[in-house]
Amino acid sequence: MRMSTLFLRTLREDPAEAEVTSHKLLVRAGYIRRAAPGIYTWLPLGLRVLAKVEAIVREEMQAAGAQEVHFPALLPREPYELTDRWTEYGPNLFRLKDRRDNDYLLAPTHEEMFTLLVKDLYSSYKDLPLTLFQIQTKYRDEARPRAGLLRGREFIMKDAYSFDVSDEGLEASYRKQRDAYERIFTRLGLEYVIVAATSGAMGGSRSEEFLSPTPIGEDTFVRSAGGYAANVEAVTTPVPAPLDYAGAPAPRTIDTPGTPTIDSLVARLNETEPRDDRSWNAADTLKNVVFALVHPDGERELVVIGVPGDREVDMKRLEAALAPAEIEQAGDKDFEKHPYLVRGYIGPQVLGVRNTGSETAVRYLVDPRVVDGTRWVTGANEADRHVVGLVAGRDFVADGVVEAAEVRAGDPAPDGSGPLELARGIEIGHIFQLGRKYAEALGLKVLDVNGKQVTVTMGSYGIGVTRALAALAEANNDERGLVWPRHLAPADVHVVATGRDEAVFAASEDLVGEFEAAGLDVLFDDRRKVSPGVKFADAELLGVPVIVVVGRGLADGVVEVKVRATGETQLVSLGDAVAVVRGDLS
Amino acid sequence: MRMSTLFLRTLREDPAEAEVTSHKLLVRAGYIRRAAPGIYTWLPLGLRVLAKVEAIVREEMQAAGAQEVHFPALLPREPYELTDRWTEYGPNLFRLKDRRDNDYLLAPTHEEMFTLLVKDLYSSYKDLPLTLFQIQTKYRDEARPRAGLLRGREFIMKDAYSFDVSDEGLEASYRKQRDAYERIFTRLGLEYVIVAATSGAMGGSRSEEFLSPTPIGEDTFVRSAGGYAANVEAVTTPVPAPLDYAGAPAPRTIDTPGTPTIDSLVARLNETEPRDDRSWNAADTLKNVVFALVHPDGERELVVIGVPGDREVDMKRLEAALAPAEIEQAGDKDFEKHPYLVRGYIGPQVLGVRNTGSETAVRYLVDPRVVDGTRWVTGANEADRHVVGLVAGRDFVADGVVEAAEVRAGDPAPDGSGPLELARGIEIGHIFQLGRKYAEALGLKVLDVNGKQVTVTMGSYGIGVTRALAALAEANNDERGLVWPRHLAPADVHVVATGRDEAVFAASEDLVGEFEAAGLDVLFDDRRKVSPGVKFADAELLGVPVIVVVGRGLADGVVEVKVRATGETQLVSLGDAVAVVRGDLS
Repeated sequence: MRMSTLFLRTLREDPAEAEVTSHKLLVRAGYIRRAAPGIYTWLPLGLRVLAKVEAIVREEMQAAGAQEVHFPALLPREPYELTDRWTEYGPNLFRLKDRRDNDYLLAPTHEEMFTLLVKDLYSSYKDLPLTLFQIQTKYRDEARPRAGLLRGREFIMKDAYSFDVSDEGLEASYRKQRDAYERIFTRLGLEYVIVAATSGAMGGSRSEEFLSPTPIGEDTFVRSAGGYAANVEAVTTPVPAPLDYAGAPAPRTIDTPGTPTIDSLVARLNETEPRDDRSWNAADTLKNVVFALVHPDGERELVVIGVPGDREVDMKRLEAALAPAEIEQAGDKDFEKHPYLVRGYIGPQVLGVRNTGSETAVRYLVDPRVVDGTRWVTGANEADRHVVGLVAGRDFVADGVVEAAEVRAGDPAPDGSGPLELARGIEIGHIFQLGRKYAEALGLKVLDVNGKQVTVTMGSYGIGVTRALAALAEANNDERGLVWPRHLAPADVHVVATGRDEAVFAASEDLVGEFEAAGLDVLFDDRRKVSPGVKFADAELLGVPVIVVVGRGLADGVVEVKVRATGETQLVSLGDAVAVVRGDLS
Repeated sequence: MRMSTLFLRTLREDPAEAEVTSHKLLVRAGYIRRAAPGIYTWLPLGLRVLAKVEAIVREEMQAAGAQEVHFPALLPREPYELTDRWTEYGPNLFRLKDRRDNDYLLAPTHEEMFTLLVKDLYSSYKDLPLTLFQIQTKYRDEARPRAGLLRGREFIMKDAYSFDVSDEGLEASYRKQRDAYERIFTRLGLEYVIVAATSGAMGGSRSEEFLSPTPIGEDTFVRSAGGYAANVEAVTTPVPAPLDYAGAPAPRTIDTPGTPTIDSLVARLNETEPRDDRSWNAADTLKNVVFALVHPDGERELVVIGVPGDREVDMKRLEAALAPAEIEQAGDKDFEKHPYLVRGYIGPQVLGVRNTGSETAVRYLVDPRVVDGTRWVTGANEADRHVVGLVAGRDFVADGVVEAAEVRAGDPAPDGSGPLELARGIEIGHIFQLGRKYAEALGLKVLDVNGKQVTVTMGSYGIGVTRALAALAEANNDERGLVWPRHLAPADVHVVATGRDEAVFAASEDLVGEFEAAGLDVLFDDRRKVSPGVKFADAELLGVPVIVVVGRGLADGVVEVKVRATGETQLVSLGDAVAVVRGDLS
């Protein structure tokens, strides 16, 4: 590749819409270009790196015994109707009609199609286990495409699907994929954490995510010193034992004007309702927050979430808990329809089917900490008034429990392995034990060893290939640009000819020839009217691991060899350049 | 690959919907599987062949100096609006909306996006010439998807685009791609003919198609001994010189009851209106056929096409001539709206703006042979009556000329190179000199050598990659199955272990190990409970070029090596098997 003809323009400025480093650098270095929100074009350098990432994924899938196939992206509605995903995906699914008015979709994942294909071809337990995979373009109409390749609407995924007769078989297939994922991310040089996860719209019994830890990650996860790790959506709250409330005084309604916040309420309580044992604190209050669930069929339902007043509702945990519905903040119109919801003073008495005895009541879901016998200060459903000493299980009953309160550093791990710490990461892989959900919906059965029809059990395993590339860019850069690991870089060596001396260009040509003869992929900056400063800056931005500068030293028969990652530089005689660069590359 | 675990089921029966051999065999041999009309899934063996075809295309594109990029398939409406293609593609375009109600499309080709990308990155004549390409999934909502991969709705294309400052530059870039196409099809071993073509919705000044000749091809093309070759849509009719009609008698209307066909009309004329010089024949009559044009915006317009009575209207030529409108036969409702169109007796007098002087008249287009001074027998716009001696240019004037009459074997080539012969082929490539249509619509200009803004001129070059694979299957088969050329086959050698003797399987395993150690890709039929007959039939169906049968001969230390294409068989000692197969493969 020669910079004089390579289809590339580097940018000095960050693109306006870019928030994260990988996005800024991949665009500035001319690896990708935005075509529409969340939809990117791959330019020559980007495509080279992508091909290398794909090759590693493909090799490890094959090594794990998975067979490659390739499904269409444009698929008919019917199979997705049978599993409810046509509806459950809601606005995240790109839907369209063909010229005969038949419904189609752009597939977000392919569980249905793989299930039907295996049903079509296979019929006996002897055919199993089977794992298939594809590296294919996927579509998801994200509400907020962002961060370049990290959350796109058209992206490349490796998706694999396993088919087994027994639960043990699924466990083994799952383990094989999990091991392959570890090898893939290790080979990519991408740090990862495996965390327990929720299954979302995919369904199934168990799932784990592979997260690449980085402060800009969209996913928050927790870890304990004792080895617990989970996506924050999957963290469960240790449930306290119920308390005996025999003899607890009846609740009292008190005036609390001027206490618009939990803090001001607590301060007022400590002032007007002092406790003998200790001060009031925010955890004594029960905060009831109104949300609108938008169900996949478009229906809008209000729900009230009760959490201890010292915690916020975590929207992602709430969404995961109530999927496939999407969650919105309740708005003025919602409150107008339910005038008994007094903003800031909502209490359980007017909420929920079980409290109110009304089938049409707004559903009331509470945090797992709200066990029977716990006592709460909460809204009195009148402005400027609260109730003190409201006892769960006596004075109110929720319609259900929901894991929606924020998880905080120091919270106990659910398995008792110690306090949790929080971190953020990019979801680069997600593996699911789907179980029999899809096989049942689509009738995938095989004859077992006794000649009886049994439903197949499945796993599904995804790697965001383009997202993994972005995660790599996020992990491999410095203030001057990208710093690719050698096996993923768009070239092995970047030769920079500087100055205007034709002898320099001639010597550079020779050197490039020698490198190429030695099997090295060369990016050659042969531009004539570009200053050395611009060339150096471009080389740093593009991130090829070794930079060879041919210039003034030529008179002494030397070139400068620079390691991009460390900045380490050495002068090397022309005759040694290939050996040094190869050695450096080995 | 081992047949015991390979995700494959061969079929003995042709799939119900399959009409052509390639479709039948690719499905029966488990290379592809239908997911929806015109939309296919690639199974492991098919994907291997596809990868080899793609690799050849990629190599030759790179050798021709084209740089690889990769565009999204899901694209915003706006660029396609600017070139009118959003509308002109009519129902062939898959359109959809995203969750914000923005219009998107699934791209049928990417001229707009490439133009905008180059505009985005480049600004000077010094940056050109440039040729970019991608191998990418395309979408077209075909009215009649058919013949498996030959006319699909989701398919893989290699599309390339060239950018030049001058017409000479475009010519050179076009030539480079044309040469690369010749190399690609030669390397694929795919016979091809290069024919002049029409540009259709693509626009531009010149285009050529690469056709793979086969009787099942959808495209009809013509050739002359003198070297003329064209798609039938692109054939132009040599226009005769106008005739002097001074002194020609006035037209006469005659009664012609019971002459529903041209033949019966001619017979009647010879009976009731005998000519001195010769008999009447069908070419003396002017047949006026009514069609409905469906414009891309949905508007329906009637048009009457006048052709000599000895020729049919060729719908494909008509569609090409009147693109982007689609053509339908006129129906009862159309005739009801235009009661002066007397079916079977339509004459020019009531047709066309220029004949009738009415702006709202049905448009009247005639064959190029209808030059001034020619005399015609045609309908009198009354049932059972015709007009004799109607003189073109005196008694009627058409609104325009249209190349819509069928081309027949023996017709003269337009360049005078002799009579034409007709044949059919599959369009495997199409190259266009687009000129400045897209660059003008999208504002792609660069500074020329004098510092002036000039509009770039472009070419566009497509290869139907999946279609080329189908054309290969169509060209490489016999009554027993597929017969792959060696460099495209899913494996180099197919080892078949026969019988139940464990020694045979053990020896086969060893042999497979030796083949693999020698760098050969092996498909190993290691199935235990499958009869030799089934295994042989599968091997023939799958079409791997060399089949090695391990069986009874093992006692004598020999295996049978069979060349799939010729059926030629030889007994080879185990020790020589690798050498023979490699030699055979070299």
